Amino acid sequence: MILTVTPNIALDVTYQVGELRRHHSNRVEASRAQAGGKGVNVARVLAQLGREAVVTGLVGGPTGQAVRAELALAGLPDALLPVAAESRRTIAVVDRRAGDVTMLNEAGPEITAEEWAGFVRHYAALLPACSGVVLAGSLPPGVPADAYRPLVELARLHRVPVVLDASGVPLSAALAAGPDLVKPNADELRESTGTADPYRAAQLLRERGAQAVVASLGADGMLAVTGEGCWLARPPERLEGNPTGAGDSAVAALVLGLVDGRPWPERLAEAVALSAATVLSPVAGRFDAAAHRRLLPLVTVGRHGPATGP
Amino acid sequence: MILTVTPNIALDVTYQVGELRRHHSNRVEASRAQAGGKGVNVARVLAQLGREAVVTGLVGGPTGQAVRAELALAGLPDALLPVAAESRRTIAVVDRRAGDVTMLNEAGPEITAEEWAGFVRHYAALLPACSGVVLAGSLPPGVPADAYRPLVELARLHRVPVVLDASGVPLSAALAAGPDLVKPNADELRESTGTADPYRAAQLLRERGAQAVVASLGADGMLAVTGEGCWLARPPERLEGNPTGAGDSAVAALVLGLVDGRPWPERLAEAVALSAATVLSPVAGRFDAAAHRRLLPLVTVGRHGPATGP
Repeated sequence: MILTVTPNIALDVTYQVGELRRHHSNRVEASRAQAGGKGVNVARVLAQLGREAVVTGLVGGPTGQAVRAELALAGLPDALLPVAAESRRTIAVVDRRAGDVTMLNEAGPEITAEEWAGFVRHYAALLPACSGVVLAGSLPPGVPADAYRPLVELARLHRVPVVLDASGVPLSAALAAGPDLVKPNADELRESTGTADPYRAAQLLRERGAQAVVASLGADGMLAVTGEGCWLARPPERLEGNPTGAGDSAVAALVLGLVDGRPWPERLAEAVALSAATVLSPVAGRFDAAAHRRLLPLVTVGRHGPATGP
Repeated sequence: MILTVTPNIALDVTYQVGELRRHHSNRVEASRAQAGGKGVNVARVLAQLGREAVVTGLVGGPTGQAVRAELALAGLPDALLPVAAESRRTIAVVDRRAGDVTMLNEAGPEITAEEWAGFVRHYAALLPACSGVVLAGSLPPGVPADAYRPLVELARLHRVPVVLDASGVPLSAALAAGPDLVKPNADELRESTGTADPYRAAQLLRERGAQAVVASLGADGMLAVTGEGCWLARPPERLEGNPTGAGDSAVAALVLGLVDGRPWPERLAEAVALSAATVLSPVAGRFDAAAHRRLLPLVTVGRHGPATGP
């Protein structure tokens, strides 16, 4: 099974309002909630692909119970570790009139040092059963900014391929542990390296320890900088839709590529096709299976820049 | 003990943001939550006055558990009846920069006919232990619009004084059952009678069955139209502050006045003083005890209009 780690798991709540008016009382016309956070989205896509995925992370309070209940309803096995503080909610207010979305993001529960140490032990105990690991998203308050580093080290120790999807210090601090793959977007690449050239920036992340870097460049596709070469994979068409979760679908494809040992061009084509099929899905965080089948053979993958491998 | 009934009990969540930006992701800087709904606020004020108050209504789901947990923390006994659907949340987004509040109000849980029938039996079983009842606030989806009527009838049957704080059809439909007191505000009075004259409107509500009407007229004070006469009570000063819960504090004073059998002018002075002391409190739904002591002797109460009693 593939383990997805979401340290700051959330209940993603969507409120539909007729029109969001500031400084007024707004009646919520419809409301829905599902477990959220990058690792949860990755697990959802893996499950939709028929692969076994287990969700872990820290969960607490009534909101944490709602997260677990929704995961159970969705058929996603959870190996979440209970903590004392309450899990966060994100609220997406969808304005029917303007067609836009306003987000309210809680910070997350304060995690004690003992709880985090307990989670690291819990994670280590799960690793022997894993064929792959995804570490994804922000860290809750109280967790050290370099917390992903020992998680990468433990996965490497157990020879379990590990994909890290993080940004800022949590990403930078974990590079030296040698994650098999990191997946920044263009903004995160620039932020963590100071260079606006994605190819150069990805090279820098490899020099700092990442074994492979796959950068999502939005409509321009995905750039892979790896020990076996560099590729650029492009979607066949300009996509209109909901980009929420598109990056998480790419991570699902990339961890499967690692676990199954498929050639890089295939991994990238799958990542771009799944990502595009997620943009085209009306349901946030799910991909459109028909679009996925249609788009996969149309993704173009080409060698890019000077190859760094043999 | 005094029983407060809040059919559509809520978890009132407050989010502080630096600046609420539409169509953006907004980071919640601070978040707090407490049990809410008019009846809960009334019970909180009664408890702050040292009186025994018990909260009832319908509660469900993880949000319902959070409501119960907060009531327990606040020392408010709860006799809430569990239902299958999840209790609602209200979200108050406080914009630090603009100093304003944007509200998002969920509709509430869908209540089945069996659940409502069960609640009416539950309420009836509580009545023999009650010295007074407050029925307050909106009804959750699925509950018939005339649901307050049998609750008023049952209270009258048990000779327990009952205050109804509702609006629209839930208020109108319950008048014929003869509630001891209804407490509309000026808008609600106009809405339910079609007349803009509060005195005339209050008379109409009495003609339809209410034994007494106390209308809150905002800064103009409170107008009481009763079988023993009519009075207008005025606060001694113009108040600046947070009006949230001021009406609920007035209801707390009014039910105590009924239960203790105090003369109308005393009841009204207390209602105006408690209401004003709530506006002056920095914490929504609590009153400022020092302001209450200072203001109480300064409230003026005068006879108003033609007396309808002896």
